[in-house]
Amino acid sequence: MTLVSNAKSWQDKASWARAQRDASLAKVEPKLQGLPDKLPLSSQELPKSVLTQREIEITENYTVNELLAVLRERKISVEEVTRAFLRRAALAQAATNCLVGLMWDEAISRAKYLDSLPEPKGALYGLPISTKEHQGMVGPDVVTTASFVAWVGKKHGSNLLYDTFWDEGCVFYARTTQPQTIMHLETNSNIFGRTINPYNRDLTPGGSSGGEGALLGMRGSIFGVGGDIGGSIRCPAAHVGVYGFKPTLKRISISGQRSIMAGKETIASTGGPMTVDREGLELFMKVALGAKPWRVDPSLTVKEWTPYKFTKPIRVAVQWWDGVVQPHPPITRALKEVAEACRKAGMEVVDWDSESLDHAKAWNIISALYWPDGGEEALGVLRESGEPILPLTKFIIEEQPTVKNLTQHELWELCAKRDQYRVDYARAWTNTADADGREVDVILCPPSFGAATPHDQSRYWGYTAQWNLLDYPGAVFPVTTVDPAKDPKDLNYVPRNDEDKFVYDMYSPEKYANAPVSLQLVGRRQYDEKVLAALAEIEHAMGRK
Amino acid sequence: MTLVSNAKSWQDKASWARAQRDASLAKVEPKLQGLPDKLPLSSQELPKSVLTQREIEITENYTVNELLAVLRERKISVEEVTRAFLRRAALAQAATNCLVGLMWDEAISRAKYLDSLPEPKGALYGLPISTKEHQGMVGPDVVTTASFVAWVGKKHGSNLLYDTFWDEGCVFYARTTQPQTIMHLETNSNIFGRTINPYNRDLTPGGSSGGEGALLGMRGSIFGVGGDIGGSIRCPAAHVGVYGFKPTLKRISISGQRSIMAGKETIASTGGPMTVDREGLELFMKVALGAKPWRVDPSLTVKEWTPYKFTKPIRVAVQWWDGVVQPHPPITRALKEVAEACRKAGMEVVDWDSESLDHAKAWNIISALYWPDGGEEALGVLRESGEPILPLTKFIIEEQPTVKNLTQHELWELCAKRDQYRVDYARAWTNTADADGREVDVILCPPSFGAATPHDQSRYWGYTAQWNLLDYPGAVFPVTTVDPAKDPKDLNYVPRNDEDKFVYDMYSPEKYANAPVSLQLVGRRQYDEKVLAALAEIEHAMGRK
Repeated sequence: MTLVSNAKSWQDKASWARAQRDASLAKVEPKLQGLPDKLPLSSQELPKSVLTQREIEITENYTVNELLAVLRERKISVEEVTRAFLRRAALAQAATNCLVGLMWDEAISRAKYLDSLPEPKGALYGLPISTKEHQGMVGPDVVTTASFVAWVGKKHGSNLLYDTFWDEGCVFYARTTQPQTIMHLETNSNIFGRTINPYNRDLTPGGSSGGEGALLGMRGSIFGVGGDIGGSIRCPAAHVGVYGFKPTLKRISISGQRSIMAGKETIASTGGPMTVDREGLELFMKVALGAKPWRVDPSLTVKEWTPYKFTKPIRVAVQWWDGVVQPHPPITRALKEVAEACRKAGMEVVDWDSESLDHAKAWNIISALYWPDGGEEALGVLRESGEPILPLTKFIIEEQPTVKNLTQHELWELCAKRDQYRVDYARAWTNTADADGREVDVILCPPSFGAATPHDQSRYWGYTAQWNLLDYPGAVFPVTTVDPAKDPKDLNYVPRNDEDKFVYDMYSPEKYANAPVSLQLVGRRQYDEKVLAALAEIEHAMGRK
Repeated sequence: MTLVSNAKSWQDKASWARAQRDASLAKVEPKLQGLPDKLPLSSQELPKSVLTQREIEITENYTVNELLAVLRERKISVEEVTRAFLRRAALAQAATNCLVGLMWDEAISRAKYLDSLPEPKGALYGLPISTKEHQGMVGPDVVTTASFVAWVGKKHGSNLLYDTFWDEGCVFYARTTQPQTIMHLETNSNIFGRTINPYNRDLTPGGSSGGEGALLGMRGSIFGVGGDIGGSIRCPAAHVGVYGFKPTLKRISISGQRSIMAGKETIASTGGPMTVDREGLELFMKVALGAKPWRVDPSLTVKEWTPYKFTKPIRVAVQWWDGVVQPHPPITRALKEVAEACRKAGMEVVDWDSESLDHAKAWNIISALYWPDGGEEALGVLRESGEPILPLTKFIIEEQPTVKNLTQHELWELCAKRDQYRVDYARAWTNTADADGREVDVILCPPSFGAATPHDQSRYWGYTAQWNLLDYPGAVFPVTTVDPAKDPKDLNYVPRNDEDKFVYDMYSPEKYANAPVSLQLVGRRQYDEKVLAALAEIEHAMGRK
């Protein structure tokens, strides 16, 4: 194996990183057997032929809370649970290329330690948690690339959130892929290549937390940590049919994660949960905030998780489209189905008028504020190794006419525009109470213009980035799957603009076989608890637990 | 009177503004009589010879809450209260030059309206509130200069905070002075000249809310609105012996205030109360947040005012000095007196080790972050009219070696340093619990290196700006006055650095005759309610109500 310190070319560095990953996967015991030579379009049936019945039971039969209960009651040992998830994660890697490394030895040693305790201890006792690589990892000798070839082999420690989860007794076992610059809504890098959607190899699992998405979509994890600055939790959660939540900024600490542009404050990212069930989202928030992280990260809002209770039927506004790009038919159908279920359950359902709120303007602002230096620092780290700039990196930096290296005065002007846009939006929301004193509780909206896209086609961020600009909390939940019978292309639709045409032309139902279709629920800034409470109401209306 | 639109020179524009002010004061009825030809050093005895007994009673005999009760019970009409404060404000102007204008007609008309209501209405019913000029004023045709000659005569409307107070039934009646650029800890501008300390004409009332300070120090107001980005509420409150509170950012809206550098987010200002009694501070916060201002200003923290209750004796850390500049003897004596009272009341009093927390570094960071464009925009607005740059403007922009027009990368580096400094400080505070699990509740510290300084000598901001950098809430309260017998100069002290020498050389007790001496109480970020609760505990320990 080439030592990274001797690696001269970017290709050598990337090979070294992949060799490290492969070495970590080679530890899997028993080895994975039963994988077909040619992987099928959908990876959903693979576990049946590769995993044991017991492994399938452990990884499939429990919600997050149920698995925690089983662990706490010591009905199954932490080690057995951990080994099952390790093996299933290895399978997910074989199927979707979602891992940068498997923590075989560390996880089993941690599991043995937790099993050896006289009493189960901690809110996450024994729970295997998968993690997005750039956020770091518990332990001072961890290396973290953040998907930059230049950073291959670079040491980087833990972050505050992981420390909290660790203190609560979790097991870290799998670190997941993310795209170059961590700023694609897909997952492709020069180090680890492309991550694949576990429902359809021709589609992306989304990004930037796409390794998490693919792993959760394979149930190689039931509780993962993502991060979101433009849709990076919600988009992959939506594309693989799991739950994801982007909290309001400054509730979940990002202290300690590795990223470029440290000190930039125009638009920030937040960590957040990606889980296989709704209750997992709330558990994540409750445990993260129960540790009072603001005592060591003073940027955070001082507020523990405070569950919200509705006293009347909720008022849901439906955003049928954002005024820029018409969603694909499966999304519109999902909106109709859920709105109808809400109505039947006695909720009030109204329309959300995005058109008059100029979402295109929001994109013009946020796309510039992502890169106030014109992308210089990001491009500089790419140049450092000589790795190629990938198409979706080009898209988000070089092809956005708004992106430029700003003077201080240009920066202030843009930030002032951002702030005014936020004010206008807040006032529009407040004004929904004008008629009868009751304002809209949540907006039900698409998490993307469609289901998971074919590779390299995720070139419209409006349905998620809008809520990053506004700093509104957003939860994503699965609704249905693409159905060619129910979701034909509207052949009479006339696109309104270039982006709309690009998105319209992309659709034909056959491309999206098996693809999950999800929706998003958005609340006002800092009403995180309300969003998750509303999600429970809506899922109950849909006939779910 | 010259019309401002025809005024060509900066002097003409400034004259026009002063003429406007004088015209507003000429409406005072009955005219002020009994002012001596030569004003005495202290203005404290002037009301006796100028105001009626009834006016003195109305303006002196009540705390804020008591006056509100009297108004609510309609024991005195709003008009009579308003006229008394209008006349006393006019006297304060004659004595200290603290007003940019008196709102004679508007205030009396408002008072008559409030008196005409069938029932008193609103939490601030009938309360005269004085206001810092650059924050604007209720009404669309208001003009606001923000102390820039270039902006003389410029229209500028209200802000959200004023709208809230207005909705709660207050009376606006006096608009107060602030310094050039609103970035001095004194109050001097080319438009209105210098504002004077009501206890000693040779001293400053502080700044930048120094017009408020002087007016409150004359009891020409008992409830004022200031703003603070480096000490601008706390410094003037301290220098005139009233109460002031700088909340954590994003509790009080500054939406609508006029200022330069809109969109800058490195370091922000906040509005806050300046009042003649402690309870006034809490009233201000309660009313401002009771209106749920975050529904229209989405930058705000969603949290109503939530009074804090201590269940044990509080733990107070005393900052005897900041490791850079030794406070003058009266401040040190005040610290000793209050610490001793706290100890006697059963509180735990420990030392705060500022030296190891490198407050000089904090100043290096914040002084640069005030002007990330090197002061270009501010200096540009000065150049626009041709008005001279005043010495304390030179001090805070041109004489700070840290100030420069930053590239985006330099900006990020500084912001990252700021954030790391905040983390280090938060962790140090958290670590005070290491010994016994109980952390320090509040820091008792100087609000300045001394009492009010001689004019143009306020050239060390460390004792207030430190807490702006950290975004910690800070309350200022009066303790004592300078006493030559108790506060002799320490002739053996050897200054540690240039700033320390400058401050040391400034002191001799005779200069500070009558000057109020105040202290500051600081809490952790977002623990605003705790700071005011601790202040009540400490004032009780001092034998106050």
